This record gives sequence, structure tokens and C-alpha cells, in this order.
Amino acid sequence: MRRSIVRAAGALLLPCVVGVATPSFAQDWISPEKRCPSPYGAEDERGAANLQTPQSVLAAARLIREGKIYELAKILDRTIPMSPGRSFVLSVQRTSGPNGRNQQGGNEETVFTELGQIGTQFDGLAHQQLGPHLYNCVETEKVARRTGFTKLGVEKAGSFFARGVLLDVAALKGVDILPDDYMITIADLEAAMKQANVEVRKGDAVLIRTGWGRLWTVDNARFIKGEPGIGLEAADFLVKRNVMIVGSDNWAVEVRPYPDKGLFLPVHGFLLNVNGVYLIENLDLEELARDKTHEFAFIVEPLKLRGGTGSSVAPIAVK
Amino acid sequence: MRRSIVRAAGALLLPCVVGVATPSFAQDWISPEKRCPSPYGAEDERGAANLQTPQSVLAAARLIREGKIYELAKILDRTIPMSPGRSFVLSVQRTSGPNGRNQQGGNEETVFTELGQIGTQFDGLAHQQLGPHLYNCVETEKVARRTGFTKLGVEKAGSFFARGVLLDVAALKGVDILPDDYMITIADLEAAMKQANVEVRKGDAVLIRTGWGRLWTVDNARFIKGEPGIGLEAADFLVKRNVMIVGSDNWAVEVRPYPDKGLFLPVHGFLLNVNGVYLIENLDLEELARDKTHEFAFIVEPLKLRGGTGSSVAPIAVK
Amino acid sequence: MRRSIVRAAGALLLPCVVGVATPSFAQDWISPEKRCPSPYGAEDERGAANLQTPQSVLAAARLIREGKIYELAKILDRTIPMSPGRSFVLSVQRTSGPNGRNQQGGNEETVFTELGQIGTQFDGLAHQQLGPHLYNCVETEKVARRTGFTKLGVEKAGSFFARGVLLDVAALKGVDILPDDYMITIADLEAAMKQANVEVRKGDAVLIRTGWGRLWTVDNARFIKGEPGIGLEAADFLVKRNVMIVGSDNWAVEVRPYPDKGLFLPVHGFLLNVNGVYLIENLDLEELARDKTHEFAFIVEPLKLRGGTGSSVAPIAVK
Amino acid sequence: MRRSIVRAAGALLLPCVVGVATPSFAQDWISPEKRCPSPYGAEDERGAANLQTPQSVLAAARLIREGKIYELAKILDRTIPMSPGRSFVLSVQRTSGPNGRNQQGGNEETVFTELGQIGTQFDGLAHQQLGPHLYNCVETEKVARRTGFTKLGVEKAGSFFARGVLLDVAALKGVDILPDDYMITIADLEAAMKQANVEVRKGDAVLIRTGWGRLWTVDNARFIKGEPGIGLEAADFLVKRNVMIVGSDNWAVEVRPYPDKGLFLPVHGFLLNVNGVYLIENLDLEELARDKTHEFAFIVEPLKLRGGTGSSVAPIAVK
Repeated sequence: MRRSIVRAAGALLLPCVVGVATPSFAQDWISPEKRCPSPYGAEDERGAANLQTPQSVLAAARLIREGKIYELAKILDRTIPMSPGRSFVLSVQRTSGPNGRNQQGGNEETVFTELGQIGTQFDGLAHQQLGPHLYNCVETEKVARRTGFTKLGVEKAGSFFARGVLLDVAALKGVDILPDDYMITIADLEAAMKQANVEVRKGDAVLIRTGWGRLWTVDNARFIKGEPGIGLEAADFLVKRNVMIVGSDNWAVEVRPYPDKGLFLPVHGFLLNVNGVYLIENLDLEELARDKTHEFAFIVEPLKLRGGTGSSVAPIAVK
Repeated sequence: MRRSIVRAAGALLLPCVVGVATPSFAQDWISPEKRCPSPYGAEDERGAANLQTPQSVLAAARLIREGKIYELAKILDRTIPMSPGRSFVLSVQRTSGPNGRNQQGGNEETVFTELGQIGTQFDGLAHQQLGPHLYNCVETEKVARRTGFTKLGVEKAGSFFARGVLLDVAALKGVDILPDDYMITIADLEAAMKQANVEVRKGDAVLIRTGWGRLWTVDNARFIKGEPGIGLEAADFLVKRNVMIVGSDNWAVEVRPYPDKGLFLPVHGFLLNVNGVYLIENLDLEELARDKTHEFAFIVEPLKLRGGTGSSVAPIAVK
Repeated sequence: MRRSIVRAAGALLLPCVVGVATPSFAQDWISPEKRCPSPYGAEDERGAANLQTPQSVLAAARLIREGKIYELAKILDRTIPMSPGRSFVLSVQRTSGPNGRNQQGGNEETVFTELGQIGTQFDGLAHQQLGPHLYNCVETEKVARRTGFTKLGVEKAGSFFARGVLLDVAALKGVDILPDDYMITIADLEAAMKQANVEVRKGDAVLIRTGWGRLWTVDNARFIKGEPGIGLEAADFLVKRNVMIVGSDNWAVEVRPYPDKGLFLPVHGFLLNVNGVYLIENLDLEELARDKTHEFAFIVEPLKLRGGTGSSVAPIAVK
Repeated sequence: MRRSIVRAAGALLLPCVVGVATPSFAQDWISPEKRCPSPYGAEDERGAANLQTPQSVLAAARLIREGKIYELAKILDRTIPMSPGRSFVLSVQRTSGPNGRNQQGGNEETVFTELGQIGTQFDGLAHQQLGPHLYNCVETEKVARRTGFTKLGVEKAGSFFARGVLLDVAALKGVDILPDDYMITIADLEAAMKQANVEVRKGDAVLIRTGWGRLWTVDNARFIKGEPGIGLEAADFLVKRNVMIVGSDNWAVEVRPYPDKGLFLPVHGFLLNVNGVYLIENLDLEELARDKTHEFAFIVEPLKLRGGTGSSVAPIAVK
């Protein structure tokens, strides 16, 4: 169903291949002819959200056996790591009052921020382009308005209630934090699955732990400079298993800088633009890891920002 | 456990009492001596969120029998109804690119808005005051900072996975929309419960449908001018049943303007400040009503705005 | 020195020509070959600001004979007319305090707005494009960054201290407000000059009064829907006299909608892009008109927004 | 006319007194009884702006003898020094287009910032409080609205065209930058006046150079940590001479931290609240200093932010 980078998957298991995207391979998945229409039809605006069905929701709900909720979002304030150029400003306003015998007073706040792309964040299908095209080869110029995108806005993705799987690569490697530029391999994902005794299935939200989240507000400069994460091969591995969402405890899901210097944020384009698979960044996966909770209901509710490229979110895992 | 307005509840069923809050009654619940410490202790910052337990989560999850998701949030854009003084501005930014062989380009958006109090919104415990005090008699002056509240911020409420109950008062009355200034009575709630064959239980999220949401972006001026909704008596009825959240398809949950002209937004203060019960406003309850879905899992994930008074949200019901 | 639309200026005085831009004429001034490099050299980023010299400043200063200041700016608040999509939100913040024996307290405000293009506003050289090009055929794609333009930013224009001339076309016509879609002709400008007994000279700031400013906050919908103002012919007339700034009491200086429906905001492009002449919109010219003050020192200090397209301003006239 | 701190001014010249505000002195000027009504009447909202008259404007204009303009504002971008909690975000928006045969395209920018208090800034009369009171003992609670102050807003100050005087204390001391916590004395001001051969007169804008501006964007942390500047004695010296504006090349005009640790930003309160004298901060005085230009026309045009506490500005000196 999905686009696959490499048909002969076996080759990817050879260590020498890991981290090296061959040129022919790169041109193949980027090409509009190869990637469009999307796997969900030429008019589709929801990508892998189409994989969510009553059956998949019901299956996810049945994973709730204890009623324990894990909060997976980082707290939002102006001290969090941000990509250069982004801001977060919350300003308290005490509105007028007191009113009435009850002496009512009201408080609220203005917030100025890149709301689609701040903190723990859900990446929608208008976030990334390959050349002039968004997902499904929608031309950016035709749909980008000052006040939002007329197609592929995050409000069309809906909310997600999915089977969640934690693949704890940091724990697999026996480290607190993976090395700064470590590219997670297919073998790593397979070993993490095996160690956790979980499979990755169609419609899953796969959460990959690198330990990078431990640097959050502790060493923001290092946090944002680079990161361990998956590369195209591991992304392809997940796409072939028809996942709906790939999340991680780093800021871009994928390894940064990318080992193949000729590619820029390629996993974003491969997942979002080619396959319609959503990303969630800056997740807090520490408590799940401590509990060795590897399978759970995963629920995320992006704000319905009309024409938005994504949404800051506060997802939960429930077991 | 909770504070009750009127000890002799039977009296409230008399029609002549409905809509008239007696003066002595008003002063009773407002008084700091009577309402503090909160039902959850003098140091509590989470209010009725304390009612959520693994057992209550598990019970809510078991209500999911079909896997059908109801999206309960309105879409956010600059055309939605807003209280005077509020704004919503989403501005698309096309960031630099194209980069690399993959010709990567990125898009995002700045948003300026009263993020805690816009669209479908969750009201937290720093939103409202009675005199100089927030919930649990926390003094606003001591905890309000320019960048947020140091106590009672919405980031402390956590996410909610609760039993949800729809009380469709508009359907009960056989109307599309309740009259503009209709105050929902205890008798209305009881009749709606009976008609739907549901009870209200401890820890529930009770969603009250007035039909007012049909005016959303259709007649914003009327939408924001007043609204049908509950009064103190109905709020007290729900508090006595230990609900966790009260939501509605209007903009303030409670009837506006309040029939007792000497009180201003009293249900806000009664629920948030006195009882720590959360409010959710501007819900879209139409599909639940059409399906006559009255019992479901209700899930809402407020953004973790540090020190925030609330959060725009995108809750779901799942049956 | 400047580009002239029509070499045989006499023809423009024929009434039948007014309001009708001939197709050949339009293509002439738009063409990059014709308009670039700019009159001030291929590397210039300041346009007509180059016309300001110590001599011109000194001459303007000598016009101050009474010491009377005219405030030409409208007050900024959220009720002013704005082009669709623009906002102005000022939110008061009471900062912490009281501090010290002096019980110091501080107040400030956040402002969110299109600061380069709000209220009484100065249009800089990055504001408008003709095709892909800004002034001096600078390619937008090469200089537009998320945080500003790397060339032609308003911070490069500097402040202006110029001879100002009021051409009161509304008074000339004996009306309070010119008709909604009235295009001011060369003959109008000449008659206004004659009536006021002023000439237009090199380096001047020419302020054209239409009376439209009387609708400001009185009938915002009408104010923004269209406007009387100059067309290309009158603009060309001013350019030939080497003016530095053209200002008006309407929102775009030029007549809207443009009589030639195939052109969109052409005077903006003609003045800013082709000739580097700055625009000032939404001036308050009423007091100058009442006093019949037609010649004065005109001073405007655009905010030095790095890479900005313009600036909200508060210019003054001094006689 | 103005309130004077110390009646026996001679005492202030003793070196041992400098930097030590005696307690009795402090309580004297702060007291509402002593400082209200203001020197300009109980209803006044303009403070020292009342000192500007046609005569003073004319006198200032006559100082223009060469036509040379000095730009005194720093460029605004997100890299400038800011007090903690402040922000400056300019985001370019390319609006839709191309339109018409002229292929018109438009660009603008949103700006989010503390616009009254960012960059080179003019402090208005609603900026500072002494206890619960603004200038003229206006109670903040009565006039502060979410959208601005109903009294004392910066839009009431108007624009200024004044005689400007540069007192270059850094040059006087023979240093590039005064020491970090140096409090400028009355003797310093007198010596600087003498060295420059200028007097300070009624209605002047006095600009005091400390050299601190050389740290701007060079060492922001040091710039904002403290600063050399005037103390109460020097402020009083200027008030007695009936100045209208006091400006400096540091961020608060006054020495920070204040030598008397029991006082917080006292010069702000003394000038703004007690005497209605305006402040301008973060001026660029380097070129004036290089040219040894000590007397000039000084022109500043605060944005007319309704109810604002101040305004970012781009003042000029003209000689």
C-alpha cells in the first residue's frame, strides 16, 4: 500500500548500508510521478489518518487494562528549546472586575507562538514540501493563504486513538541518551521490538525513545543542535508496516544532521509528503520507559487550527 | 464532599424557586471561610481532577464498544465568535528552502490569540476569582506573574479520560435551540437523565446540550450576546453528584445574563473557585445528539501552558 | 531623472485620457528592462530618500516661522479601519511590584499587529512587487527571510525632514469628501497648486487631501471598500517633479478600485517599485486644511524595523 | 514650578552626599500629598509636554543651521537587548498575488512585541507607578483596561520638537564607557555643560551620554545587567531647570542597580510620576558625540498607541 524505498529489504540489514542513502534511491521517492497520487487517492487530504477505523480504535481501547495515564507532553513556556526563529510568549491578562455581589474577576492570557510547531508537536500534511509540492502533490502556491492552507490543514486530520508502541532504543543500547548523531537502524527497531516483545502493526503510533528528551531545558543548545533519530531506512521499515504516526523524544524524529549531506530533513518529506504518515516531536517518554510499558492506547488531539501545518499537543498513553 | 448551596434539595424542585438565587444563599458559597480550604485540601491545585483514578479511567474505557469517535471541537479561525477583546490571528509563514536534493521546504504559522480562552476551551483554576481569591483561596496577587500563574496553572490539571454523559436539554424540550436566556433547571437535568436513561456519577464529564452551538459562525452577534445554560441550582445538583467536568455547547456553560442581576458569571465561580470543577465551553454536541449517544468515554487533553488559565482544546467522545 | 509614463505630458491634460491607462503605457513602466537599474543606481536601497540633502533639510527648516505643530497621525487602536486580514491588539500588562520604599510599579503593553502596514503608515521599498521583483529589480525570493528582508528594509530609508506641500483637492472641488471612486487628475493637482499658490519641488513631501479621512472610525466599511485618490497620470506628474514622498488621507494614496480593471494597485508599483517614491497613508490632514496651511516642514520618523516593509508612523507638519 | 528634592542644593555638591539618598528625602517626593496635583494641574495628562510652545518650537527650529540629520534610534530586531520577559518578533508575510497585468504582489509583516517598551523607547506617563498611583495621582485600578489606559496614554503626549542638548559625561571623564554602576552627579552635569559650552533651559530635551550604548548587541548580558546613569540628585538638577525630556544611551536613563538599595528605579518615578518629565532610553548618541554636536533641534514622534505606556521611537537630532 505504501511507497517503499527499497524493494529488497534484506539488503538494508547489512550494516554497511545503514546510514548511506544511495543517490538512485533518493531520487526515486522524491519524484512526483512516483509518489502521487497518494496511497489514499488523488483527492485525499488526511493521509495515514485513513488507517484509523472503528476496529482499530476498539482494538486500542482494549489495551487499557489498568487505567493508568501517562502524560507525554512537555510543559510549554518560554524556556523550552525552540528552532531558531520560533518564540513562545504567554502574557497574563487580568481582565476587569470585580463584578457583582460575587466580586467576580477574570484572568486570561495572550499567547504568541508558532502554535503548529512548538513544544510537543504534531506535524500535519501542510508542514513540509518536496520542491513546490505538499502531500499528494498539492501545489503550495495554490493553497497557501495568509490565514492558513486551503487544503491539507491540520483540522482535517482529526483526533487519534490508536494502538501505541514504545520502541526504546536507548534502553536497548543500555544508555541514557543515544549519541548526538546516531542514526537508528532497522536492526535497532527489530531488536527493540523483540526485547519489548511487541510487533508494529497497521495503524499504530510508534514512539521511538532516544533519551534525547533528557536534555530538554537542561541543555537546550545541545538539544537543538542535532539529535539521534531514525533515517530513511528505518522510516521505510515503519511505512511498510503501515504505521499511522511516528513519534519520538527528540525535536525532529529523524537523525540531525542527516548523514547524507545532500538531503535535508528527508524523513519528514518521506513520511509526511510521500506517505502521509504523521510525526510527533518532543514527546516525554521517560515514564513509559521506566515502567517498561511498550503497548498502550495512544491518544492525541491536535487543535483544529484551520489551515494549520500542525499543532502543539498534549498526548497521552493509557494502559 | 463538595459544597452544596442548598441543603434541602427538595425545595429546589419547586418551579417558583428556579431562577431566583436568594441573597443569603449567594453570600454563603462565596465566603472564603465557607469555601476554603478546598474539598481536596489546603494545598491542592488540581480540584476535581483528583476524582480521576485508574478505576474511573478503566470504567470509562469500558464504555468504548464500537470504536466510534466524535470530534467535539469547533474549528479555530478568525471568524469564530469571541468575547469582546479577544483575537485569533493565524499567519502562515513559508520558511526558507528549497534545501538539498530533496528540495525540502518548510511551512509553519504564528498564532496570536487568548489561547487559554478561545474556541472550544477548557477553563482551569486560575481563570476566575471571587474577590481577590482563586480556587482554594489562593491570592491572585501572590501568584500572578506576567508569564503565568505560579499556582493553579492549567498544566497541573493533566489530561482527562472520563465517563462522559450527554444531557440533551434542547431535545428534551423538543427545540433546536433553547430560548436565549433560558436557565436550565434541576428538573430539566433530571428529565434529560431519565429520557436518556443515564445517571450522573462521581468523576463524570457532563455535557449539556442547549442547541446554542448551531449559531456558531452563523450568528456570532447573537451567540455571544447571551445564552441559555445552567444556573447555580443546576450547578449545585451536579456538584453534589461529584462531577469532574461540566461542558456545554454555549460559550460560558451558564445562562447569560444571569437572572439575578446582582451576580456576575456566578456558576463559573461556584464550579471553578468553590468546587474545583472544570468547565468546557463551545463544544460541538450535534453529532452526539443526532446519534442519541448519551454515555461514552470522554477525553480531553489541555495544552500544558505553564501558568495558564485554561486551554483551547479538541476533545473527543468515543463510544 | 525619474521614469516618466508619458513623454508628451500635454496629452494627459485632455479630459478624455484621465482614468484610462492605455495598454502600451502600462507595459512600458512595468518592464524590468525599462525600470532597472533604479534612478539611483543598481545597488541603491533608499530610492527617493536620496533626494534629501542638507540643503533640502535646511530649506524645510526655514519654513518654520510660527512654531505651530500639526499632528498628522491617527490614533492606533483596535477600532480603526484595516485591510482584511490585518489586526491590532494592544494588551496592557501590569508588571510586578510594588518594589522598594518608593513602591515602584511598572506597566507596559504587548502589541500584535501588522506594524509596517497599520494606521497612519509609511510604505517602504520592500512592500510591493511587480512580478517577482521589488524596487531596483531585487528578487523577492533572494531577500525575503522569515524575520525580514535582507535588502530594502525600512530601516534603510532613514527619517525625513522635508518641505511639505498640501494639495487640498476636496477643498478645490468644494466638497467635504471626494466621490468614492474619484480619480484625481493632473488638472486637479495643478489647480490645487494654483489655488494654494504653491509649487511642487524636488524632494518634497506632497500631501493630497481627499476628505476620505473623515470616514475614519465613522464608517470603516466604506472607508476600506474603495477610495478617491490619484491614478498613474497624477503620480507621473509628481514623479516628474521629483517628489520624495506622496501622502494622503486615504488608505492607499491611489484611487480604488483602479479604473483600468486590468491593473491592481498600480500607483503603488509605479511610485515604490519604479521610482522609489515613498507613500504615507491614512494621514490626518484636517487641521492643515482648516488652517489653509499649504507649505510647511514635514517630518516623519519610521521605526527602524530591520527588514520591514514599512512602519506605522506619527508624522508632523510644522509651520 | 517643579518639585525639588532638596532645597539646599549646595549640599548636593559635596562628594560624600552623592549616591546616598537620605530617608527623609525619599519619603518627601513619593508622598501623594506633596506631589499631587501635578505642576500642570489636577486634570493634566500631558506632564512636561506642556512646556512645548510655539516659541520653544521656533527656537528649536532656529538651531538648524546646516541641515544635518542625526539618526538617534537603534535598529529593531530580535537580537537587541531586552529586559527579561520582553520579546520582539517580526514575521514577514508575503500576501497573495500576482494581481493584474502589473503582476502586483504585496508584502508585509506581523510584529509581536512590547511596543511601548522596546528598542529606543519613549516612556509615557502610564508606565510607572508609585504605590497605586500614576502621574498626577491617577489610580491605576481606575484607568487600566485590558486594551490600554483610559488616562495618561502616550497618544496624549503628542510629538516633540525641542531644543536638544547633549551632555557627554563619558567624554568628560575621558572614557569610552562609564563604569557599570557609575552614578552621574550634579557636578558631572555641570562640568559637561561647561565643557560643551551649553546651558540647560526650560523645555529642553537633555541627552546624557554614558557610552553604554556601545555594548548594544555586542554584550547584551552586560548591557541589561546594570548601567551607569543619573541618580535622584542629577534628576532633580534637571527638573529644577524645567527640562521636558531626559534621554540616554542606556536602557533606563538612571543608574542600575540604584545605590540606595531600598529604592527601585526611583528616577523613573521622580521624573515620570512626580514631575511629568519624559524619558527616552537606548538612544544612539555616538555620532553626535563624534561631531561634538551639543545643541540641536530634537524631534521625536511617539506612535499614537491609544492608552499606551510609551512607544518605540526613532528620534532625530538636526543641526
